[in-house]
Amino acid sequence: MRHFLSTEDWSGVEIAQMLEVATQLKRQPLQTTMQGKSIALVFFNNSLRTRTSFEIGAWQLGGKAIVLNPGKDAWPLAYDFGAVMDGTAEEHVAEAAQVLSRYCDLIAVRCFPAFQNWELDREDKVINAFAEHASVPVINMETIVHPCQELALAMTMQEQFGNLENRKFVLTWTYHPRPLNTAVANSALMIATKMGMDVTLLCPSEDYLLDARFMEAAQDYSAAAGHQLTVSHDIESAYANAEMVYAKSWGALPYFGRWEEEKPIRDACQHFIVDEKKMALTNKARFSHCLPLRRNVKATDVVMDADYCIAIDEAENRLHVQKALMTTLLNQ
Amino acid sequence: MRHFLSTEDWSGVEIAQMLEVATQLKRQPLQTTMQGKSIALVFFNNSLRTRTSFEIGAWQLGGKAIVLNPGKDAWPLAYDFGAVMDGTAEEHVAEAAQVLSRYCDLIAVRCFPAFQNWELDREDKVINAFAEHASVPVINMETIVHPCQELALAMTMQEQFGNLENRKFVLTWTYHPRPLNTAVANSALMIATKMGMDVTLLCPSEDYLLDARFMEAAQDYSAAAGHQLTVSHDIESAYANAEMVYAKSWGALPYFGRWEEEKPIRDACQHFIVDEKKMALTNKARFSHCLPLRRNVKATDVVMDADYCIAIDEAENRLHVQKALMTTLLNQ
Amino acid sequence: MRHFLSTEDWSGVEIAQMLEVATQLKRQPLQTTMQGKSIALVFFNNSLRTRTSFEIGAWQLGGKAIVLNPGKDAWPLAYDFGAVMDGTAEEHVAEAAQVLSRYCDLIAVRCFPAFQNWELDREDKVINAFAEHASVPVINMETIVHPCQELALAMTMQEQFGNLENRKFVLTWTYHPRPLNTAVANSALMIATKMGMDVTLLCPSEDYLLDARFMEAAQDYSAAAGHQLTVSHDIESAYANAEMVYAKSWGALPYFGRWEEEKPIRDACQHFIVDEKKMALTNKARFSHCLPLRRNVKATDVVMDADYCIAIDEAENRLHVQKALMTTLLNQ
Repeated sequence: MRHFLSTEDWSGVEIAQMLEVATQLKRQPLQTTMQGKSIALVFFNNSLRTRTSFEIGAWQLGGKAIVLNPGKDAWPLAYDFGAVMDGTAEEHVAEAAQVLSRYCDLIAVRCFPAFQNWELDREDKVINAFAEHASVPVINMETIVHPCQELALAMTMQEQFGNLENRKFVLTWTYHPRPLNTAVANSALMIATKMGMDVTLLCPSEDYLLDARFMEAAQDYSAAAGHQLTVSHDIESAYANAEMVYAKSWGALPYFGRWEEEKPIRDACQHFIVDEKKMALTNKARFSHCLPLRRNVKATDVVMDADYCIAIDEAENRLHVQKALMTTLLNQ
Repeated sequence: MRHFLSTEDWSGVEIAQMLEVATQLKRQPLQTTMQGKSIALVFFNNSLRTRTSFEIGAWQLGGKAIVLNPGKDAWPLAYDFGAVMDGTAEEHVAEAAQVLSRYCDLIAVRCFPAFQNWELDREDKVINAFAEHASVPVINMETIVHPCQELALAMTMQEQFGNLENRKFVLTWTYHPRPLNTAVANSALMIATKMGMDVTLLCPSEDYLLDARFMEAAQDYSAAAGHQLTVSHDIESAYANAEMVYAKSWGALPYFGRWEEEKPIRDACQHFIVDEKKMALTNKARFSHCLPLRRNVKATDVVMDADYCIAIDEAENRLHVQKALMTTLLNQ
Repeated sequence: MRHFLSTEDWSGVEIAQMLEVATQLKRQPLQTTMQGKSIALVFFNNSLRTRTSFEIGAWQLGGKAIVLNPGKDAWPLAYDFGAVMDGTAEEHVAEAAQVLSRYCDLIAVRCFPAFQNWELDREDKVINAFAEHASVPVINMETIVHPCQELALAMTMQEQFGNLENRKFVLTWTYHPRPLNTAVANSALMIATKMGMDVTLLCPSEDYLLDARFMEAAQDYSAAAGHQLTVSHDIESAYANAEMVYAKSWGALPYFGRWEEEKPIRDACQHFIVDEKKMALTNKARFSHCLPLRRNVKATDVVMDADYCIAIDEAENRLHVQKALMTTLLNQ
């Protein structure tokens, strides 16, 4: 039994197969591959697209999704092993995962980092605890990576470009008033390199490099495809000739838990906003973002409303890839 | 493609047709008019009847409802255009509406006024932003009007009276410790006059008149039916000979945002409560209210528990009219 | 029409029949006994198992569950009769129960005590108000008793032991940092005695005896089965020869509302934790708990992870017994 915690655990061929199933489901949405089957959606953080697309997706396949919000409508959960649970958590993931496995055929979990200590957050303990204790497949709905978003991004780029190999992909950091999760940035870097694209990571400085685990994975994928992962802090040269611009904001890892120190550095980088002028430097690039997106902070209205913005297509494709994913996991 | 933002946009004939479909659905609740179709229910405010009736209704028609609570379990939304989103909102209605249109076949929105500035609230920006950006029909689940409640009220009165023309309808303001939304009052006034009833608006003083837009619409509907909209501040004469008493509390528009100044005025009007003595003045009138209702504040226990109280019927009919509405919008 | 508020209202034969239906449903989960039928799940308190098992259960039977959280996403509710509703409650249970009865075929309610005044809490006013005003069967999802948990516990013990008569059952109080609801303790005592088991209540002192209503009911059930309900404050002798150890923490009734006074008494009893050493005193007993459970506070990791721990089975059986219950109530 395999989980879907990261695309690192799935080969390029397996991912291509899932995307093919997703394409079929986009054409014929109503199927019966989840007839009588259910999925528990465990949200430690907010969601619009993820929840809606999983709920609708399960239903369109004849299945049933249950939404749980631990700490809001469900019990707060502990996830460390061996600990004396004398804090706020009333239940351990060990029990929650086992019980949900008795009720449901799949468990999906969203759990963002705590943003206090990256050394702790990068261990991704909550979803790993679910995966350890569940007796059904566990799906990552965003922790420190966002593999469902990766599938949607890959599918959306394939719709635009066909074969993605050698296409020039730029992942650009953007400003946001708060330090955000690196998950989508980690994921974008991994899937673009894995698909054989020629990838540039554009960010304000070395402070904004991603965790070594993901940088190295992306370098390895790049090397396997005959490319070299480029890191750039220069906006103009990074955008030049790009065919795909993908934007995301994230907090600087060296400042984890000391965000007041990062704030002036971040505030000095508001010019990283994606705008018409930057897009004009590209090779008629498409633009996308995982959403939600703050307009006129991360990207301008003009960019968001342009024909080359494919963010809504990417959001729609979340539905199709997740249906393919659930079908795949239930059929293993 | 038409939205259902206000009954003002729908002719009397169209509304009569919807009520006829609702009556059929009340007799035969299980249908397939939403087979494979879904509706997103976006709640910026609490709900019991609206959410339950839409969820059950969609399901009884073979469809699926998804509930989203922006700011609680979904991202807080911005709705102004061109603004720099550097506040608390993480997502713009422009994206939310487009994405939900990709996942669902209908979008329904509840968004009460902010109660700070009526000039702003009366523009009803949130639902209008949804309607502008959605590519599927948008349903108003209560903003500054409550058209679904109008349909339920009309259906319930028809069940009691048959043809509503010339029936004497009194909309009475009642006390409530907090200033409430004018939506149901606006809506009751419009639907009663539109159905050709002889309508009196009873309220403590000119401070409690409704927005000119709705007063004028009601006057026009009245005139078209050969009536004149009556405004009264005298309880006894307003109740005299009434055949239908409809109660609602609302805040005085001139005091919007200065509620501490309105409070003593409001507090002096607790005698507007609907009680046995007032009901005895009527022509054996039926009584109703949209619910929720504070017992012994807006209406006494005796009135609420009387045979002439049809509020529970009206609440039930929310289910049937909304099923008719969803069916109608999906078949256009 | 019968409600399911307490197992006290249902005979041993009727409960045995429900458990038989549950066993059949465990073998063949997908049925149509709720086709076209719906249940409103009203939660005044958090839930993981209860909500998930009711939602999945209704769906597996062809039905539909609606989740409402009064005070969170639905209106706060009043339940006293005759009161002037000038506090925070916007709606009375009288209306909520009547309206939900029009939309749904069953209403289930979870409402924990307020923990301020046991004399008030023990009247269980909220669910009784629902039962009084609903025109459909009402199910108790935990108030001051937890009868659905009783059914699951009975089913799980039958799976382990077959006939439960004369089996030695120990209900042990355990430490928890906060004073918890007595509901599951009351319920465990009642169902174990009702099933003819030889029951011991182990707790730190007379302060932790349960309400007289439940102590007396358990004594009566014990007497009818030829046993005597044993109360013990001695851990070693209580565990000796036990075949079933059931753990629960609860607040001391004499200290209701004065919890700061109870705290040192409670804190002195942390040694009531269920551990290997105590379990070794038993007659190869099974262990269970209703969950959620704080590991290494109420029971050690070793106990929770042992083969003799059947808490996950009990949690699973919530699904099956509740499906049997809904089927039974809809078929009366």
